[in-house]
Amino acid sequence: MEFRILEKGGVTAPSGFRAAGVTAGLKRTGKPDLALIVSDLPAVPAGAFTSNLFAAAPVEWDRCVLNRGGLIRAVVVNSGVANACTGAQGAKDAEGMAVYAAEKLGLERMEVLVSSTGRIGVQLPMDTIRHGIDLAAAALSAEGGAAAAEAIMTTDTVPKRVAVELEIGGKAVRIGAMTKGAGMIAPQMVPCKVRAKQATMLAYFTTDAAIGREALQAALNQALGLSFNRIIVDGDTSTNDTMIALANGAAGNPEITLDTPEWQAFTAALTHCAAELAKAMVMDGEGVSKFVELTVTGAPDDAGARKVAEAIARSPLCKTAWCGADPNWGRILCAAGYSKVPFKPAQVDLDYDDVPVVRHGLATDVPEEEQAAILRQRSFRVRLDLGAGSGHFVIWTCDLTHDYVTINADYHT
Amino acid sequence: MEFRILEKGGVTAPSGFRAAGVTAGLKRTGKPDLALIVSDLPAVPAGAFTSNLFAAAPVEWDRCVLNRGGLIRAVVVNSGVANACTGAQGAKDAEGMAVYAAEKLGLERMEVLVSSTGRIGVQLPMDTIRHGIDLAAAALSAEGGAAAAEAIMTTDTVPKRVAVELEIGGKAVRIGAMTKGAGMIAPQMVPCKVRAKQATMLAYFTTDAAIGREALQAALNQALGLSFNRIIVDGDTSTNDTMIALANGAAGNPEITLDTPEWQAFTAALTHCAAELAKAMVMDGEGVSKFVELTVTGAPDDAGARKVAEAIARSPLCKTAWCGADPNWGRILCAAGYSKVPFKPAQVDLDYDDVPVVRHGLATDVPEEEQAAILRQRSFRVRLDLGAGSGHFVIWTCDLTHDYVTINADYHT
Repeated sequence: MEFRILEKGGVTAPSGFRAAGVTAGLKRTGKPDLALIVSDLPAVPAGAFTSNLFAAAPVEWDRCVLNRGGLIRAVVVNSGVANACTGAQGAKDAEGMAVYAAEKLGLERMEVLVSSTGRIGVQLPMDTIRHGIDLAAAALSAEGGAAAAEAIMTTDTVPKRVAVELEIGGKAVRIGAMTKGAGMIAPQMVPCKVRAKQATMLAYFTTDAAIGREALQAALNQALGLSFNRIIVDGDTSTNDTMIALANGAAGNPEITLDTPEWQAFTAALTHCAAELAKAMVMDGEGVSKFVELTVTGAPDDAGARKVAEAIARSPLCKTAWCGADPNWGRILCAAGYSKVPFKPAQVDLDYDDVPVVRHGLATDVPEEEQAAILRQRSFRVRLDLGAGSGHFVIWTCDLTHDYVTINADYHT
Repeated sequence: MEFRILEKGGVTAPSGFRAAGVTAGLKRTGKPDLALIVSDLPAVPAGAFTSNLFAAAPVEWDRCVLNRGGLIRAVVVNSGVANACTGAQGAKDAEGMAVYAAEKLGLERMEVLVSSTGRIGVQLPMDTIRHGIDLAAAALSAEGGAAAAEAIMTTDTVPKRVAVELEIGGKAVRIGAMTKGAGMIAPQMVPCKVRAKQATMLAYFTTDAAIGREALQAALNQALGLSFNRIIVDGDTSTNDTMIALANGAAGNPEITLDTPEWQAFTAALTHCAAELAKAMVMDGEGVSKFVELTVTGAPDDAGARKVAEAIARSPLCKTAWCGADPNWGRILCAAGYSKVPFKPAQVDLDYDDVPVVRHGLATDVPEEEQAAILRQRSFRVRLDLGAGSGHFVIWTCDLTHDYVTINADYHT
């Protein structure tokens, strides 16, 4: 590992970033609901957003800003209201958030990105938002990363942040990050200039590295593919999924360019941060009691492996079996069998951790109790080999529990 | 309506059919677990089966028998063990069920269809099956339809059967049917000679009509498309889904041929029976508290409408919102938005029963309490119009409840 994990994680770990998390008053609970990240230097941005047709107004604003190619100074994030399915008023309000924050901070509106998460179909209470921005601007600090991570939470039970340090050209470079997301999680985000595929999860990465836009976007894309785009909590893909990285160059390293050893090292560190946050997100998913690393190998190709893995990770029967620590592997094979990926049932092998459960499509003689003991762990591995090729894919997923139903049958922010 | 609904439903309502339901000993609960249907005359068969790659051994046997083109005299069905993912032994045992029943009843093995439902990956206890066949053969009666419908239940809470009578060529013709299925329900069955698409649901139709094989299969295909193939309970498509129709001609009507008014009348009656049973299946689905008739209109085409309807019907967030009578329509639009069907968000309308909830992609001013009152009913309609074409599709679906989790986190037959 060419990087070092910092004890104090979060978006203010790199130099030149300040943040705040405050209670604007959007949540009935009175918990923090507005976060602000400010880079003291203009920062190179990169981003990826939901592919949901109902992309929320803040997502549309961010795409527009990023496509103009300028540098970024601030990100405002509110929780409680998603500003999705809000029409022309929603678009006006997303821009309004940017404009108000820009005025407050002495910036241009096109230097401000915005994000929202919460209930869909409700208009943003702009007075509350402006009040929150006032409070946040006053509270900005280089120790504000922790408060910011709390303010973006919705049904999350713990704030999620991380930071690493690595050396680039003799300079110490830091990457800090925070994320939220517990339900409506099956991200399939696409880089900001592409609109082809399709979570509410929000993830913000800050770095004091000097790195070009193209190199940063490429690093983000790779990190995304190995983290958020391979997790499934409930299988619903949100209207607001957002992943943003800001690089302000405060570390003073020689600029990182694409496909160099420095880029590789930076990307590995960024990917580590993204993967840690993605796993933490699943672990803290709505009602989740079990973390499952699901690996599908032996598919005709990687896309086929992914399709099989997604069918299993979305199956209510597989997920409830994991909840009950029920080794009922027939449900896993059944889901693979309806995924429409071609393979031969008699070639299939399945393992729970390192224990063979199915060989050549048939039950092994490993006692059910031994299998159940694995599934009673907080975290375990499921590996399905289809014996039909070299395609493979890994998904981080979870069980479906009573708490999930409780949270979502009674959800009102 | 050109048919009359009979009070005593079930597979023995038509002339010339006998049935039985007995306790062979497959279920730990000691509840009935083996059903037998016998036609006193050789019957023309038609069928449709799961498209799951892991098609169970009894499904493979039935396909083989039906593809040979002969007439059928009996169907043996066991619950408790699915005989799926059971390899060569499973295939031998499926045939063994047919052989033993044939011997017991004085038939040829190729005149006997078999079905199994229950846990996947467990070998059939053949001594128990043979004991059950002995008991069932002894118990066969023209009043046995009710007992048979009970014996095929797994997590079903009520037996499901129906029967109708219609007049064809001056003769009274009857159609009787029974079904089971409560979980692993998202049937996509295909007619027996085709293997392209993909429930455990079992459905058996008997009729004393005289009708040719091709005409019967065409009637079954149409009934299937308007019933079982448009229901989703949990979204898992089983390894054992089976729909079988047997026509023994005992009514003495002039043979029904394809695309005649008589065929239309027969098909309408068969479709009615299938649709009633499909709805009853959803209503009695695992843990179900709400029945939802979900209609998608205005899609680019019917296939697109189906894709959107399926995304909504499979969405854990939509299903839990229905459970909680939460009018949170954003979840429905969100699911439509990630279905990958093209439409314009600003063109979308949504109704709960006859109440407009969304117009042109935006919330109407109908108070939330009024919307919630609709969703508190045991049964309601959700209609989504995409405004992007004339494609439409209807799915019968349900909510996701605590009871679903309880049933499936602790399921062992």
